[in-house]
Amino acid sequence: MSTDTNADADDESTSNCGASSTESTSSEASTDTSSSKCGASSSTDDSSGSKCGASSSSGSSSSSSSSCGASSSDDGSNEKEVGSTVEDFDAEPGQLSAVGLGPGHPEGMTDRAKTALLEADHIVGYTTYIDLIPDEITAEADELYDTPMCGEVSRTEEAIDRALAGHDVAIVGSGDPNVYALGGLALEILESKGATASMVDFEAVPGVPAAQSCAARLGAPLVNDTVSISLSDHLVPMPEIESRLHSAAKESFTITIYNPWSRKRRENFEKACEILLAHRDEDTPVGIVHGAGRDDEQVMITELGELEELGESEIVDMTTTIVVGNEDTYVWDDRMVTPRGYETKYDY
Amino acid sequence: MSTDTNADADDESTSNCGASSTESTSSEASTDTSSSKCGASSSTDDSSGSKCGASSSSGSSSSSSSSCGASSSDDGSNEKEVGSTVEDFDAEPGQLSAVGLGPGHPEGMTDRAKTALLEADHIVGYTTYIDLIPDEITAEADELYDTPMCGEVSRTEEAIDRALAGHDVAIVGSGDPNVYALGGLALEILESKGATASMVDFEAVPGVPAAQSCAARLGAPLVNDTVSISLSDHLVPMPEIESRLHSAAKESFTITIYNPWSRKRRENFEKACEILLAHRDEDTPVGIVHGAGRDDEQVMITELGELEELGESEIVDMTTTIVVGNEDTYVWDDRMVTPRGYETKYDY
Repeated sequence: MSTDTNADADDESTSNCGASSTESTSSEASTDTSSSKCGASSSTDDSSGSKCGASSSSGSSSSSSSSCGASSSDDGSNEKEVGSTVEDFDAEPGQLSAVGLGPGHPEGMTDRAKTALLEADHIVGYTTYIDLIPDEITAEADELYDTPMCGEVSRTEEAIDRALAGHDVAIVGSGDPNVYALGGLALEILESKGATASMVDFEAVPGVPAAQSCAARLGAPLVNDTVSISLSDHLVPMPEIESRLHSAAKESFTITIYNPWSRKRRENFEKACEILLAHRDEDTPVGIVHGAGRDDEQVMITELGELEELGESEIVDMTTTIVVGNEDTYVWDDRMVTPRGYETKYDY
Repeated sequence: MSTDTNADADDESTSNCGASSTESTSSEASTDTSSSKCGASSSTDDSSGSKCGASSSSGSSSSSSSSCGASSSDDGSNEKEVGSTVEDFDAEPGQLSAVGLGPGHPEGMTDRAKTALLEADHIVGYTTYIDLIPDEITAEADELYDTPMCGEVSRTEEAIDRALAGHDVAIVGSGDPNVYALGGLALEILESKGATASMVDFEAVPGVPAAQSCAARLGAPLVNDTVSISLSDHLVPMPEIESRLHSAAKESFTITIYNPWSRKRRENFEKACEILLAHRDEDTPVGIVHGAGRDDEQVMITELGELEELGESEIVDMTTTIVVGNEDTYVWDDRMVTPRGYETKYDY
């Protein structure tokens, strides 16, 4: 089974706030070097290469990666273990946790996430996220299984198969497992295998989502009712995304935009800017956070009227999260502030 | 300056997922015992009582608390220090951090939040939240300043005055400072005092919001585009809240409802249920998490058609967060699952 490269770029960047330093690169490069970038055995990451390059699991990933960028599900049937059902496992199942790493830097992790990772025999994830985990934690794991850009679905299946085979498994992502992330996919695949969530004592371990990590860098832009919208039309039709944008912009919701940009979806960003401008003033404050918590972090506060043009600049890519203010949002001392309404009730 | 008791119950419960064990109690009791419940000096919490009951700050809180439940801003002028401006301070300002504690249990905190608290000379917050902080952290603080239910605005002013007086101050709340919390109020009050955010090196330290803490307990209900809406009409007119509910329910957003219920706002909850039912089927899955992470935690998955009636039961109060699924959300193995759409692209 294979996944679309950009689908992974979308999905795995959405649940973090710029944590994945290889993400935009991979995304950009995916069209020409996807096959060489895919599969754990071709990973350029030493720890992962040495730990999982030789495993049958990474083998299966390699085979799926050969069609990276395509969407052919036939490969799945050729993959070792992929497509297996609960009947194929005799062992007492282990535990499966979907663990959110938060913004990406270790200080952004919760103790609960660290404990879940320390208790896991196997840690499974996108290479970039595995790399975010402190060495003292990964060193405790019996095995790390990581794959680069592509393989989101097959990687999740791999994690589930390992849990059904009796291992305690943590599948990781940055941000939160419930924000454009793998929590749902894990449950869907468990069901498709004839297993249950209870069987693997499935647990989602929450983390700080990108919206909150980025809002904190911008000031206080999201303190009222708010909406999160992804511009990725890989799994959601663009007309539906446009309709949601209209509804959110018509009301006074603040809006966090995930997946603003990819090579394949320049026009989605342009369309989103048009829709927002149809309902909000050109001078509506907009916060842009690129690569939050990374060496190349960039934080910019601009106006809605300038946003589309900035889409052409490096600050907007798949590691960028954009926060659009509502009609009350203002910029003060280089911070975005969305008043909660206290000033209407209290004298200060 | 005083704040409305329910305003605090609203605001401070929204940014946590049932963390505050005294919250619903205080909320319920506020109408008859507010005056005895308000002001740090009447705090029943030993550590806070002994550390801040005698301070001039807690004195000012006591004076404001005498009108707890009312909304008279005149009290403010009688309060020591409250109303002071940046001109009133000669010292080199300290640092001010708005720190999100996450879901409430210490394991849900990030290392960054712990570090921010350990670096603070003074920790300021609602008594219930101060109590959530591990003793080894509060023991390091020179002073704790906490007030019960009322006093959100005056407490934030107190934190700012202490920072302007040269102390490093952390003002804490559960959840995230950008989710119906104090990040914005702190910036608004700084501005009103003629100070700047830069002057106190203002920093928001993100935490895991209630929506994510509760979604994790429910399964994977929020993995797609989603909306957060508070039913508190203390700071937002109800017609605006209703309009937002209509817009969100019309589109296929999943919806997290904060502040579903208070003595003062039973009808808001009933109205919200009506609006949701006008756009979504009666059997739409709804997750209810009461007091998440607390001893009295209750998690229930029900249907939209049953929600209004449950408003009469104990599971729905100010410590409750409600997650409403979209048209694709289903219940499987006692979990809420909102498919992301992979099944339309991949074969598993």
